Amino acid sequence: MLRTDGRNDDVLRDIRITRGYQQWPAGSVLVEFGNTRVLCAASVTEGVPRWRAGSGLGWVTAEYAMLPSATHTRGDREAVKGRIGGRTHEISRLIGRSLRACIDLAALGENTIVIDCDVIQADGGTRTAAVTGGYVALADAITWLGAAGRLADPKPLACAVSAVSVGVVDGRVRLDLPYEEDSRAEVDMNVVATDAGTLIEVQGTGEGATFARSTLDKMLDFALEGCAELNRLQAEALALPYPGVLPEPKPKKSRS
Amino acid sequence: MLRTDGRNDDVLRDIRITRGYQQWPAGSVLVEFGNTRVLCAASVTEGVPRWRAGSGLGWVTAEYAMLPSATHTRGDREAVKGRIGGRTHEISRLIGRSLRACIDLAALGENTIVIDCDVIQADGGTRTAAVTGGYVALADAITWLGAAGRLADPKPLACAVSAVSVGVVDGRVRLDLPYEEDSRAEVDMNVVATDAGTLIEVQGTGEGATFARSTLDKMLDFALEGCAELNRLQAEALALPYPGVLPEPKPKKSRS
Amino acid sequence: MLRTDGRNDDVLRDIRITRGYQQWPAGSVLVEFGNTRVLCAASVTEGVPRWRAGSGLGWVTAEYAMLPSATHTRGDREAVKGRIGGRTHEISRLIGRSLRACIDLAALGENTIVIDCDVIQADGGTRTAAVTGGYVALADAITWLGAAGRLADPKPLACAVSAVSVGVVDGRVRLDLPYEEDSRAEVDMNVVATDAGTLIEVQGTGEGATFARSTLDKMLDFALEGCAELNRLQAEALALPYPGVLPEPKPKKSRS
Amino acid sequence: MLRTDGRNDDVLRDIRITRGYQQWPAGSVLVEFGNTRVLCAASVTEGVPRWRAGSGLGWVTAEYAMLPSATHTRGDREAVKGRIGGRTHEISRLIGRSLRACIDLAALGENTIVIDCDVIQADGGTRTAAVTGGYVALADAITWLGAAGRLADPKPLACAVSAVSVGVVDGRVRLDLPYEEDSRAEVDMNVVATDAGTLIEVQGTGEGATFARSTLDKMLDFALEGCAELNRLQAEALALPYPGVLPEPKPKKSRS
Amino acid sequence: MLRTDGRNDDVLRDIRITRGYQQWPAGSVLVEFGNTRVLCAASVTEGVPRWRAGSGLGWVTAEYAMLPSATHTRGDREAVKGRIGGRTHEISRLIGRSLRACIDLAALGENTIVIDCDVIQADGGTRTAAVTGGYVALADAITWLGAAGRLADPKPLACAVSAVSVGVVDGRVRLDLPYEEDSRAEVDMNVVATDAGTLIEVQGTGEGATFARSTLDKMLDFALEGCAELNRLQAEALALPYPGVLPEPKPKKSRS
Amino acid sequence: MLRTDGRNDDVLRDIRITRGYQQWPAGSVLVEFGNTRVLCAASVTEGVPRWRAGSGLGWVTAEYAMLPSATHTRGDREAVKGRIGGRTHEISRLIGRSLRACIDLAALGENTIVIDCDVIQADGGTRTAAVTGGYVALADAITWLGAAGRLADPKPLACAVSAVSVGVVDGRVRLDLPYEEDSRAEVDMNVVATDAGTLIEVQGTGEGATFARSTLDKMLDFALEGCAELNRLQAEALALPYPGVLPEPKPKKSRS
Repeated sequence: MLRTDGRNDDVLRDIRITRGYQQWPAGSVLVEFGNTRVLCAASVTEGVPRWRAGSGLGWVTAEYAMLPSATHTRGDREAVKGRIGGRTHEISRLIGRSLRACIDLAALGENTIVIDCDVIQADGGTRTAAVTGGYVALADAITWLGAAGRLADPKPLACAVSAVSVGVVDGRVRLDLPYEEDSRAEVDMNVVATDAGTLIEVQGTGEGATFARSTLDKMLDFALEGCAELNRLQAEALALPYPGVLPEPKPKKSRS
Repeated sequence: MLRTDGRNDDVLRDIRITRGYQQWPAGSVLVEFGNTRVLCAASVTEGVPRWRAGSGLGWVTAEYAMLPSATHTRGDREAVKGRIGGRTHEISRLIGRSLRACIDLAALGENTIVIDCDVIQADGGTRTAAVTGGYVALADAITWLGAAGRLADPKPLACAVSAVSVGVVDGRVRLDLPYEEDSRAEVDMNVVATDAGTLIEVQGTGEGATFARSTLDKMLDFALEGCAELNRLQAEALALPYPGVLPEPKPKKSRS
Repeated sequence: MLRTDGRNDDVLRDIRITRGYQQWPAGSVLVEFGNTRVLCAASVTEGVPRWRAGSGLGWVTAEYAMLPSATHTRGDREAVKGRIGGRTHEISRLIGRSLRACIDLAALGENTIVIDCDVIQADGGTRTAAVTGGYVALADAITWLGAAGRLADPKPLACAVSAVSVGVVDGRVRLDLPYEEDSRAEVDMNVVATDAGTLIEVQGTGEGATFARSTLDKMLDFALEGCAELNRLQAEALALPYPGVLPEPKPKKSRS
Repeated sequence: MLRTDGRNDDVLRDIRITRGYQQWPAGSVLVEFGNTRVLCAASVTEGVPRWRAGSGLGWVTAEYAMLPSATHTRGDREAVKGRIGGRTHEISRLIGRSLRACIDLAALGENTIVIDCDVIQADGGTRTAAVTGGYVALADAITWLGAAGRLADPKPLACAVSAVSVGVVDGRVRLDLPYEEDSRAEVDMNVVATDAGTLIEVQGTGEGATFARSTLDKMLDFALEGCAELNRLQAEALALPYPGVLPEPKPKKSRS
Repeated sequence: MLRTDGRNDDVLRDIRITRGYQQWPAGSVLVEFGNTRVLCAASVTEGVPRWRAGSGLGWVTAEYAMLPSATHTRGDREAVKGRIGGRTHEISRLIGRSLRACIDLAALGENTIVIDCDVIQADGGTRTAAVTGGYVALADAITWLGAAGRLADPKPLACAVSAVSVGVVDGRVRLDLPYEEDSRAEVDMNVVATDAGTLIEVQGTGEGATFARSTLDKMLDFALEGCAELNRLQAEALALPYPGVLPEPKPKKSRS
Repeated sequence: MLRTDGRNDDVLRDIRITRGYQQWPAGSVLVEFGNTRVLCAASVTEGVPRWRAGSGLGWVTAEYAMLPSATHTRGDREAVKGRIGGRTHEISRLIGRSLRACIDLAALGENTIVIDCDVIQADGGTRTAAVTGGYVALADAITWLGAAGRLADPKPLACAVSAVSVGVVDGRVRLDLPYEEDSRAEVDMNVVATDAGTLIEVQGTGEGATFARSTLDKMLDFALEGCAELNRLQAEALALPYPGVLPEPKPKKSRS
């Protein structure tokens, strides 16, 4: 019993990772999970937020947003509504936490990296695409900082991070749900994992349904395999040279 | 190796559930997990939000907040700041989702129940206490609606819901963390479960740390045992008579 | 002609003052005027707001709020609406002004005390209960500061402050109105007074009605007697020892 | 011992009332208490706010604001800050309550009158000037509605309303304080009264000071005499013809 | 073919410029273009905004607003709505840009001048009246600063600035449109010019219509003649002495 | 004397227009003016805003925004700041006005088209690129509505609309300024024109500089030639077939 798009239950959609999508940020990656397209940009600033100044530690944070035109029915612009919605907050915090798990903030030195994840087109799994693409943008920003001689220690990244969704649809556990499956899933789970096979975040939810522990176990199996495949694709993308001009190793003021 | 408060790793703090704490709401429960105290009030209104009207389905939602004086260092009032913070949004949504998982909204009929969870004193685990106490307040509101003859079907609650935190502290998996442990936990997880032993929500996070799948398994073991004990205490509390005057079975306009 | 609750016109409801209600704030008092219950917490911070820094003077301010579940019909949460309402502002300012009238801010030294007055249950007279309970919480915070050796002068409190409502209901002047009377009062007045019998604030209003000066005089008579009784009950409550552990007299950084 | 401006303690400043100051609103009055200048405009709309629709009752409300350039030091614009301050709320509510006390809302019929009180120049007593001028603007709006044949009953105004400030300065009770006295007053009181000599609102405050009941009595004596004089000047101004073109007695849609 | 008010197509309405309208600001001008009346106040503060501090340059900015009672139908108050509308922003920025074009900010020294333009009565052309009156208020503030000895250089004003509206109504190009013409104009243009005949700003718009370049040329002819006449009236008004008491040439802290 | 990028003064940058960039909106166009890239999406909804309902007229409006990562230095997100800035408002209004000038809203019927213009990469001229690309997206949305049989009249577009910037840089009039020129331009002008050679909007500004009328004339010459070239490129792009699947001519509910 195949899925609408012909995949087996445990197979990812087509994944594409394009580095150097924009010219200004130190890292800029367009990540695609099937029709889901997210632009992940890593902007670097010298210094850290005030509450952290003088600690010697850097800071990594993320902001997630959806273009109004990204969804099937146009969504209202949060800037026009004058407030960030609860879902946006939740996802921004998830991305930030996930990427901080892989970086040694002391090695980063007192630099701030903001990862902007703007969804260009939404078809399910935007937050997991954002984590996966955000990691690649972060890696490019680290390369940029290294070239500029601004890292406290040359290797701040301890591991690679990827994420994928998994759920129960039509009573079957399935990996990497497009919107058509996601919108009718009985259970929905997002898993963030490292290339060492350890977990960073597990969020499983049954709205209007509950699930057995054995189902949770099978979802984790699928998700960890999916993350391993994503790690492989990240590594492949990062094996290419830095897509732009790296700075000279003199003290520069800021680049965003 | 005991914990600061003398408990074994897999033991809950002292739990107290006091029904009928306020006079106006249909359900009002003070729940205490050790020094954590949360007031959970279930207010009933006839009708449902506009986007749901005419569907025959009811609605259950939750709002979580912290009194400024509840924490060790006074917190700013969100009403004064003019916006709900990301953490507050996330927890409100979690409580609402968790309680909706146990209720048949068609049986509820076109009534709305708002569960207000106001933290009087915070010492770790306020969100899981809120879910646990919120269920008892919800059960009282259902009793109230039943007495008033306003349910579409007499038994809308399909199961009982409780929640507990679990984490890794000092390298050991521990249940029901107080603030002192929570603030230095390497991994932090919240589990919402039913009295049938199934899961509603699993949220595990390692900020600045990752965790093995075997650790996740052990955390789930502890959490499911904790939830079972909480279900027992909820049932005990609900075995007592409704703490107040039930309405006559005539159509009433509203009670909040 | 007795009132619904059997009281004479010039008699207060049952008053209860419970100190040490919460563990973290330096002062925490639950005050009850009949079914009206207000939690008054006095949190201490070292230093003063920027506009006051370097003056040698301390600062006392208050924030009043109502739990959504405190009223007969559930009230919307001001944090969700994103703004503080006019009534809330007015009452917060009244409480702050009233408590500042009794304290020598030079003797307080450059410390800030915030009095949070959160209404747990509303049945008329919440603002006057808040002033009355807020004074007791303030007195405990002063004791705490004194023990910590952080006062510029040992006796900053010049007098005790209490408040009570009075109004014209059914053509009769009545003291300490519950909601049932307050909602149909022709004239409504709040009086804040000291234990020396002097006045701090008098606010009398006739919405949709006017009142003679002789009525004002009689309302003042009742209110001043009511305040004297409240002062007696405050003194009784404060005669008990400080409900918690006082700090050592070394310079501490902050306690809230 | 005369005051800085040469007045005796119980004498008003020069009062000027100019009707017809603007061309669009049904009533538009510039009121001056010495250097304090407030523009009071009464705008009429057919219909009432939704919560009042179908009741047969009209509605009167007020909005108070200060031009940034009205004060000695320029004030920030509340629209730029994005929120109405507590003081502005308090005064708007006071003006609205005071003017509603003199009007029979059933006689007004389902019309809304908004009284905008914009302070052009501030020199103490802006809120009492606003009430005093607001009454005259309201009277003009009533005349306008009567000419248009839109009143439910021809005489909705039951009495005239005026207001004045009084305080204790340099230990002496003084009437109608300019900024120079107001800013150092030990006690500050605002009194709203009718031309029948009855009271509508009494607000007396001692910030950082308390006051004896006998002082309150003397302040009331001065204020009631001041209000009587203001009532005389209002009547004088209103004895002149309506300053503009009155509508024909046909049903008109709206005028603001 | 004359216009409703009898003017020829290329003639301004009656223009009146009244200096010294308020007592506190360094410049305060009531400007009238027919029935349009705008109060322009120039308030001076020592120092500049933070992003400019230490540059040696001064700053001039403007805030435009409309009284609710200024328009035919009462407008909602932006402070109550909690946000500045797009039109208000646009006009404030236009006034600020226009007045900065005539001033040497280095000669001004590190002083800030805020020009508040509050519309008392609106009948078309409020933004161009605001620029025209704002220039006169600015000139008075410069005189005030010069008297106080606080200018870096004695002549910061390089030219005079005025503005006027012009449009196409009933197929004819017309100058200085009142509301009755403005509301049905096919093309609407605002021109800001100097007394040297050069341009500062040209904003021409056809909403729901387009216009030929030859029409643009004729509109510019009319507008430049109108501005020249306005410059003559500004010079006439400024030929009178400063309307108030100038400061002594000692270093003063601030005046607003 | 050539420009930094080698162009003559009156030559446009490389222009690229890509239709069908996103899958959901009825029109979705990526427009590029050199390194400036703007995504213009036209979303269709049945019905019109409430203030317009029942008029038989349609509505076209625009919202402009900048991705935080689009600029050289990362910009703050307006949704996070909680308010739309003045510049964003101004540009959104300009785009909406410009596109409404070319469309017959009666022929559109009671449909709403929202044009979202999100800047992916900024290098000067983002607002004129947005107008130019927005017109192409609008044309696609009209084609879509026509195929669906939802237009009141088959040809609502009366003309094509394009826009370009022009300015004075280094004393020379230059067309289509990149950021490097724009940031130091003495005069900056935006011109919106139709393919009939008529004008829709002219906005010329000299901040800190004024300009002669002859300069204005030369800027208009350059701009009108630039717009004619842009019209040619728009027509070329629109000569290709509709990039997606057109709906069947049955009444459909909505597409965004």
